Amino acid sequence: MNDGEFVKEIASKDEAFSRWYTDVVKKADLADYTMVKGCMVIKPYGYSLWENMKQCLDDKIKATGHKNAYFPLFIPESLLVREAEHVEGFAPEVAWVTHGGEQKLEERLAVRPTSEAIIGSLYSKWVHSWRDLPILINQWANIVRWEKVTRPFLRTTEFLWQEGHTAHKNEQEAEEETLKILLEVYKEYIEKDLAIPVLVGKKSNNEKFAGAVHTYTLEALMGDGKILQAGTSHNLGQNFARAFDIRFLDENQEEQYAWTTSWGTSTRLVGGIIMVHGDERGLKLPPKVAPIQVVIVPILFDKTKEEVLNKARELERILSDKFRVELDDRDEYTPGWKFNEWEMKGVPVRLEIGPRDMAQNQVMAVRRDKGNKTVVKESELITTLSKWMEDIQNNLYLTAKTRLQENIRFTDNYNDFKDIIEEQKGFIKTYWCGNPECEDSIKKDTKATIRCLAEESDKKGKCIYCGKDSSFPVYFGRAY
Amino acid sequence: MNDGEFVKEIASKDEAFSRWYTDVVKKADLADYTMVKGCMVIKPYGYSLWENMKQCLDDKIKATGHKNAYFPLFIPESLLVREAEHVEGFAPEVAWVTHGGEQKLEERLAVRPTSEAIIGSLYSKWVHSWRDLPILINQWANIVRWEKVTRPFLRTTEFLWQEGHTAHKNEQEAEEETLKILLEVYKEYIEKDLAIPVLVGKKSNNEKFAGAVHTYTLEALMGDGKILQAGTSHNLGQNFARAFDIRFLDENQEEQYAWTTSWGTSTRLVGGIIMVHGDERGLKLPPKVAPIQVVIVPILFDKTKEEVLNKARELERILSDKFRVELDDRDEYTPGWKFNEWEMKGVPVRLEIGPRDMAQNQVMAVRRDKGNKTVVKESELITTLSKWMEDIQNNLYLTAKTRLQENIRFTDNYNDFKDIIEEQKGFIKTYWCGNPECEDSIKKDTKATIRCLAEESDKKGKCIYCGKDSSFPVYFGRAY
Repeated sequence: MNDGEFVKEIASKDEAFSRWYTDVVKKADLADYTMVKGCMVIKPYGYSLWENMKQCLDDKIKATGHKNAYFPLFIPESLLVREAEHVEGFAPEVAWVTHGGEQKLEERLAVRPTSEAIIGSLYSKWVHSWRDLPILINQWANIVRWEKVTRPFLRTTEFLWQEGHTAHKNEQEAEEETLKILLEVYKEYIEKDLAIPVLVGKKSNNEKFAGAVHTYTLEALMGDGKILQAGTSHNLGQNFARAFDIRFLDENQEEQYAWTTSWGTSTRLVGGIIMVHGDERGLKLPPKVAPIQVVIVPILFDKTKEEVLNKARELERILSDKFRVELDDRDEYTPGWKFNEWEMKGVPVRLEIGPRDMAQNQVMAVRRDKGNKTVVKESELITTLSKWMEDIQNNLYLTAKTRLQENIRFTDNYNDFKDIIEEQKGFIKTYWCGNPECEDSIKKDTKATIRCLAEESDKKGKCIYCGKDSSFPVYFGRAY
Repeated sequence: MNDGEFVKEIASKDEAFSRWYTDVVKKADLADYTMVKGCMVIKPYGYSLWENMKQCLDDKIKATGHKNAYFPLFIPESLLVREAEHVEGFAPEVAWVTHGGEQKLEERLAVRPTSEAIIGSLYSKWVHSWRDLPILINQWANIVRWEKVTRPFLRTTEFLWQEGHTAHKNEQEAEEETLKILLEVYKEYIEKDLAIPVLVGKKSNNEKFAGAVHTYTLEALMGDGKILQAGTSHNLGQNFARAFDIRFLDENQEEQYAWTTSWGTSTRLVGGIIMVHGDERGLKLPPKVAPIQVVIVPILFDKTKEEVLNKARELERILSDKFRVELDDRDEYTPGWKFNEWEMKGVPVRLEIGPRDMAQNQVMAVRRDKGNKTVVKESELITTLSKWMEDIQNNLYLTAKTRLQENIRFTDNYNDFKDIIEEQKGFIKTYWCGNPECEDSIKKDTKATIRCLAEESDKKGKCIYCGKDSSFPVYFGRAY
């Protein structure tokens, strides 16, 4: 095989985005299909990316006063049905356990599609007085929602996520929590660590979480103009507290229902990273979460092989204190092949070192985001790489931010709306009267949904569909 | 409530060990029962302990060249049944999913009781040449094995664990891996991080993993004289490679089945920590994994409250650089109550600071393992605490090690054997002829099983049950 072949095997990003996506997932060794319908395996390289993402988010969740815990995988049917909207929303996706060992169970158990029900039943046990509140708990767990199609990371029957579940003594605290997670935890994580810019806002009633009072969301633009819901934060009001009987005595010794919230992000965001930053040569990973930040490829000739390898090992040792480093000393591949493979895997910086570089105490360094080669003196390597890691992180974010801004289009004309959603895609900012029937009709016509409400302004407009006066500026888009 | 009441509520460790165990689990806020039969919830304090344990073990697993990945929760029945011994061993414990959404499934799916089958089916896809080997993968996951009784951490339908699954190009490498995990990873983790001394050795055929060629185990003595299997490492030979068709071309271009291993430890070890180190006052946590290493309890009087609180906050800030610290500034509890509570939770060191200590630039410090109060100058606090953390870790280990050594008794007389197992319990070292019928008869008589084979020596003996010549020195005990 020649060196270019490695990359040629993936589909064109511009012409066949969906195939490009699955090709990159496989070629970069992130995940694989399995014989279990709808279920993927996250391979070591993909899982290492997820571990770094988890660490970034977990730090932020803990820094805002939340603690991790672990709740049962199984939810008895009688518990799941207690909140009516909730069960209606999730029942079509539930996997049911009916037998344990050789016995048929008296009651079916749902494999958790989300944990409000089981956690609510425990908070009901744990909360008695206002002194027990707030409860601020997060869980890292696997989730099952039945799917017929598998799209690795984007749509799988089983996926990994974190779900926060909090209980508060009044409405205001619950709303503050919902917004804190949205803005101080999720937005920071997604924009700063994953370099993915987002629009944030409330969901319409049609699109909110089943059982919530309202849902806030973070919405990101993907490379094909479609939109990915990147995370959600739900104010559940007293709905779940009533359904699961979470009551407490307040400071005045009066009994009240608690106010609860829940919020989640998942392995879907791995898909987001691929689709926001990737290009024709494969992945481009933000340094903060990249499993390997610097790869060293020695250029080996028979005569100087040992010296160059020793130098490469020395560099690996020195750089490992500050960066996640891999030395690619495989014998069976050419340097060209290796360059292509590490570009496919999105490693932020590649260092090449051969006998001539060595003689001059320098290395050849290549940034994955820019592609051009730079000579770097060994003595300046750590300083340069530290600076580059920040630069690359910022550059990925700013590139995506510019593309996001260029792809928010305003229109108040429905024909233009339909043209834009078909041709350029992206976000369309427009007005909506608040009537779910208009929302449904637009979805039927165009496959576009309200991704989120925009911040309200004094300016009023007319509903893009029915023409009625509207005070709801909204963002539409076609979603994953 | 008076201060002592907090502790008085737990059962006596000597008189009612089993009740003492569950009382401590609840009182120390490690876990709780749920309405889902057999399933527990791991509460924040218990989960934080588990997170620290995970980190210690994960570091060691990665340092020995293994990588983490994630495989599906569900295993199709047709896959699980491929290894005959394996399915026979696990079928009675499997939870079956029969419906997805509103549809009955064509094939039942097992909720993973262990992942050899699903992982084997993927290794079969991934392995083609000797260059693809070894595969060294570990997974952190939840596991389901049906149980009718719940004993938090020790016996639950769902538990958390890690399972390693490796594939090698020859028998020797697979055996080396099995032993490396046993001795360099698990023994180090359990003895050095958890301070639990273990006996290690092979399992008898009766007790080995379903489908393995042989199983190595680590066995620990609990506070009641019963034995806990703390971890196992299995050499699977080519059994699973044949069942799941993991073949490769070796260096001579000849097709071969791979040689595989698997190994696991779980949240059971939380139970081990409780039962090895705990005492009448509750938990005693090894500093390396304790969620809180130092708790500061300010002694507050109206006049000096603010100054003392400020000093306590200053100490918290200074110590947080080096230790996991908690400042207990709750108003609603007396210092005495707090002392009892933090002892129950096993925090290695408690610092008390009141106005008189403050005036003398000192604190009162109490080690959980010793109990006596020591005056420590503020200027020496960090040095003293660093030394104490090591001392406490060692002291817990050595105390347990002494008890282990005192509770290994040799006998070659079956009547003595029965007396010991009934009265003193612990390990009994004796000889066994190798016949599983003798093993079964002893189990029926005494509820004792072979925990592991001892290292073989030149010395031969006679089987404790049938009297035949034996070359198998073994350790018996009653197991959890």
